[in-house]
Amino acid sequence: MAGVLAATGVAAEGAGVAGGRKRRIGVLVFDRMTLLDAVGPAEVLSRLPNTEVKLIGRRRGEVRGDTGHGALIADLRIDDVDRLDVLLVPGGSGAAGTAVVEHEPTMRWIRHIDRHTTWTTSVCTGSLILAYAGLLVGREATTYWSAKDVLAEKGAVYVPQRWVRSGKYVTAAGVSAGIDMGLYLAAALTDDTTAKAVQLALEYDPQPPFDTGSPDKAGPELQELAMRLLLESQR
Amino acid sequence: MAGVLAATGVAAEGAGVAGGRKRRIGVLVFDRMTLLDAVGPAEVLSRLPNTEVKLIGRRRGEVRGDTGHGALIADLRIDDVDRLDVLLVPGGSGAAGTAVVEHEPTMRWIRHIDRHTTWTTSVCTGSLILAYAGLLVGREATTYWSAKDVLAEKGAVYVPQRWVRSGKYVTAAGVSAGIDMGLYLAAALTDDTTAKAVQLALEYDPQPPFDTGSPDKAGPELQELAMRLLLESQR
Repeated sequence: MAGVLAATGVAAEGAGVAGGRKRRIGVLVFDRMTLLDAVGPAEVLSRLPNTEVKLIGRRRGEVRGDTGHGALIADLRIDDVDRLDVLLVPGGSGAAGTAVVEHEPTMRWIRHIDRHTTWTTSVCTGSLILAYAGLLVGREATTYWSAKDVLAEKGAVYVPQRWVRSGKYVTAAGVSAGIDMGLYLAAALTDDTTAKAVQLALEYDPQPPFDTGSPDKAGPELQELAMRLLLESQR
Repeated sequence: MAGVLAATGVAAEGAGVAGGRKRRIGVLVFDRMTLLDAVGPAEVLSRLPNTEVKLIGRRRGEVRGDTGHGALIADLRIDDVDRLDVLLVPGGSGAAGTAVVEHEPTMRWIRHIDRHTTWTTSVCTGSLILAYAGLLVGREATTYWSAKDVLAEKGAVYVPQRWVRSGKYVTAAGVSAGIDMGLYLAAALTDDTTAKAVQLALEYDPQPPFDTGSPDKAGPELQELAMRLLLESQR
């Protein structure tokens, strides 16, 4: 891990970014997104010193998740935000992604913000949004396991890994992979020791009762059932 | 796993609960809670068939998390809710927990709801709230690693496991442990196959970049740094 990070070219800056200001991390939030895609990595990154995490929406206020049970609050509008050190784009239902990529001001904002980020990142089908924005052409990237063909159609090279780094772009696999990627980013933004302490702060010592978290491990029948449960649970 | 669940005495009911109504799962939300404590298991449980997950607060509306960057929406007030099949109590900052246990209507509500639940559950320091409500006396339970002494003071028997079941009470360790417990509950409420499919639906195939998620693995220096990062990040 230390070797990987040493090769990123991003200096560890436990005390914030150059000039002493706080590191600014923005999470794009939108209707019918998957809440854990955002909350997982945000929980990790908001524990870093001198770091400000903000949820940013098309407008301020409530953004309801894809299953309808929960909602997050966007504290800032995209029009309020001109610069970010880290942009994180979560995924959501197919309808959610379509609504985002068809909203030209949001796509323009993503491209604009990306010009100045240190890291542009995504979780789950959030990478499709980055791909539609034209940011992943020719790049290795990952996405939710069932969406890999869409990623390839938009010019990215799908790699079935938990997270994939290509230049300053880091894409994570489905939903819970955002926590793993969050720790990778935490180390890249500060140092391994700080990231390790954040892992303990979240007591992230995963012990799932089953071992069916990837399509290969789960097999075709569970893949079919998973897709059915997803569709039935989405509003 | 199958053996554990066969011993719970809770019938697998993929089609909902007896009478054909939807299974009702309620997550208590409160100011300065840890968002991932709630969103992790809620994301798991909201994918189950015939299941309704609701966030329930002292009042309706915004509930801000302990780091201040994010907020959830409570759609129901505790006064609106008389029965739940599953109650889930997340944790939060020390101030958050104190505010909950000192709010007599909330504690009365927890005890009332608990009388009729199939499962009463917690994540992280949420188990301290259950303990203060008098529900864990003499029971094995777990909590956030740094809070184990408080749990013991309130009469529970601390067990350092990812999640601990005692009768109908299931307590999870810190923050991210709620996802693991969520999958355990998913299996208990439906069946192993459905829970396995939900694990795939969330692509929960954890691969953290480090192995410092428990205090034993992390050691005393990272424990100290983790507590410092937690305190500095809490508002």
